[in-house]
Amino acid sequence: MNRTFRESFLPPTRLLLGPGPSPVASEVLMAMAGQTIGHLDPSFIGLMSEIKTMLQMAFATSNEATFAVAGPGSLGMDACLLNLIEPGDKILIARNGVFGTRMCEVALRGGAQVIPLDFVWGTPVDPQSIEDALVHHRDIKFVGFVHAETSTGVQSDASAIAAIARKHGALTIMDAVTSLAGIPIKLDEWGIDAVYSGSQKCLSCPPGLSPVSFSPRAVEHVKQRKTPVLSWFLDITQVMAYWGGDKARAYHHTAPVNSLYALHESLRRLHLEGLEASFERHRAAHLQLLSGITALGLELLVDEPYRLPQLNAIKIPSTAHDAQLRASLLNDFNIEIGAGLGPLAGKIWRIGLMGEGARAENVDRLLNALKEIMSRHANEALSMAS
Amino acid sequence: MNRTFRESFLPPTRLLLGPGPSPVASEVLMAMAGQTIGHLDPSFIGLMSEIKTMLQMAFATSNEATFAVAGPGSLGMDACLLNLIEPGDKILIARNGVFGTRMCEVALRGGAQVIPLDFVWGTPVDPQSIEDALVHHRDIKFVGFVHAETSTGVQSDASAIAAIARKHGALTIMDAVTSLAGIPIKLDEWGIDAVYSGSQKCLSCPPGLSPVSFSPRAVEHVKQRKTPVLSWFLDITQVMAYWGGDKARAYHHTAPVNSLYALHESLRRLHLEGLEASFERHRAAHLQLLSGITALGLELLVDEPYRLPQLNAIKIPSTAHDAQLRASLLNDFNIEIGAGLGPLAGKIWRIGLMGEGARAENVDRLLNALKEIMSRHANEALSMAS
Repeated sequence: MNRTFRESFLPPTRLLLGPGPSPVASEVLMAMAGQTIGHLDPSFIGLMSEIKTMLQMAFATSNEATFAVAGPGSLGMDACLLNLIEPGDKILIARNGVFGTRMCEVALRGGAQVIPLDFVWGTPVDPQSIEDALVHHRDIKFVGFVHAETSTGVQSDASAIAAIARKHGALTIMDAVTSLAGIPIKLDEWGIDAVYSGSQKCLSCPPGLSPVSFSPRAVEHVKQRKTPVLSWFLDITQVMAYWGGDKARAYHHTAPVNSLYALHESLRRLHLEGLEASFERHRAAHLQLLSGITALGLELLVDEPYRLPQLNAIKIPSTAHDAQLRASLLNDFNIEIGAGLGPLAGKIWRIGLMGEGARAENVDRLLNALKEIMSRHANEALSMAS
Repeated sequence: MNRTFRESFLPPTRLLLGPGPSPVASEVLMAMAGQTIGHLDPSFIGLMSEIKTMLQMAFATSNEATFAVAGPGSLGMDACLLNLIEPGDKILIARNGVFGTRMCEVALRGGAQVIPLDFVWGTPVDPQSIEDALVHHRDIKFVGFVHAETSTGVQSDASAIAAIARKHGALTIMDAVTSLAGIPIKLDEWGIDAVYSGSQKCLSCPPGLSPVSFSPRAVEHVKQRKTPVLSWFLDITQVMAYWGGDKARAYHHTAPVNSLYALHESLRRLHLEGLEASFERHRAAHLQLLSGITALGLELLVDEPYRLPQLNAIKIPSTAHDAQLRASLLNDFNIEIGAGLGPLAGKIWRIGLMGEGARAENVDRLLNALKEIMSRHANEALSMAS
């Protein structure tokens, strides 16, 4: 056997200020290390009920079909799209970053007729353009969009988009991977029909779970399908028999028991703090970062009204070396930040201030490190020039 | 906020002797509670490489496409079938329990033309019947079967089935959820083309991950598909860009970081003990159980040559009350065992001796509890009769 396997893995201690995962509180890690019990154990059923209620509170919904898909956010995307879409269905998808683009790909594979609607990366989805497209095209059944684009740091007006979709008889599918617990979400008030999120962003839980919620209208739509959902694993009509109300739980798949311990604890912490307080903390950390980077001569990619407090896209100045700075942050300071993706690769850094990351001491630590690296680079450039 | 959310969840301490999850060693739980790092962190990439190598060792394969799907075993089933099957493809699936039945359902949803081949629950798949079906039907592209049927405690002859499939030009898809690390698996020697397992059985890791492996022939088949894989999340050509060799990892989805810490530690423990020693330990625990239940007048459902040491289906005697005995084991003794499923509901108990569960002290504890409950029930029956 290879010698390395004789050793346990000891993860380095990083400050996670990238696009996720975010820092996880020790209470949540300890919860995750609780003794494993059976996924049909009566006390586990109680845990699931509490998770469901706390997710409903976080999403501001009374949707019965609210639970955590047993996989990361990308699987939650699959879950929402594959449950709703049938072959040939028309879906309008707003693309203003990586995740809107991915939604198109997922919907295409599900057999949908995809109508993509493009917006410049770094700008929000324009509700008027959604309405124009709904008027122009016929029989659009679904509108998909990303609430908080993790690839650009932009938030779009979910309330306006959902209202327009509803006016035109379409169901709304929303990516809330990065928005949940970082900025307000009001599923019922806005009229969102299907939403998926991720555990590893503003909930500050380890990655691996995708909270989802389906409106009664969406559930009814799934029940009326003419073709079965392509994925047996994701079929919500079956998953709900396991996550369902007070009825006897039917075995569907083996739930990721310990991951759900962690999600329970992270949701508990969220609600103990309070949603509004969590939003405010994210906003304060963002403003602190903005002030600090402005002092360093840096600026954000996104215009003020559309900025996500939890995901800050900083334009890389022409004097800086992208990969070198990120490597230095990671190796010399143990701080992780994110690179740009797609057309923004090499053009932005992505600073996540999510969940436990959104605290003043973390922003301070990042700003100090950035300052030190940038002045070091400036000195090197100076000495090379002289 | 509901009062109960003010409290953390404290799981009861159960001895898990059901069909999974199995008991998890404290070293594995501690590993899972390690500080979360980024899924693209260089040190995490190292962890993934080690997991891949240790999975290859466990499966006895050199398959490059060996990794852990970021979801439970049922998602691994989706992964194997949806990657290989294209609409209209013929697949022969052996059904001798819940999981062969599920495989048919998954394949049907993937658009396959499914040819089910039924065997009595509690009996193995007969290789000759597979051959007859392959001769009788034309153009069968895949043969699917369950190596270790968790619902009945039966093992089938994977080597013989794969050899026949190969002789007739079909690819073999094997469910190894309960077999991995409990009984020998030799993917390369047998010529299995796609396999999925689960973390929560004989690996004694918390549930939530599905180790999978695809032969070069299977990978080539996926690359030659005329239609895209229905699930973006499960498309192995993309997942492999993340789990792939020494090349730069491409972001696909956010890996379940802490769950992979746990899998790494459980695999490390497996290889420190050694595969052969693990098989022998499972076998010894099974024989101990068999001897003990025989003394209690109980017998196994499955004929001797086909018994799985790690999953023992005990026939419920007419004098015993199924649900009552299981409830008493759980509530009075904190021992979980499994109920029968489908046609075997009420007819068998399923005793899992998997991973950490397969130890003499656990078997002793179960036998003592069984003896006590059965004698208590006998006394009650006696006093009611008198």
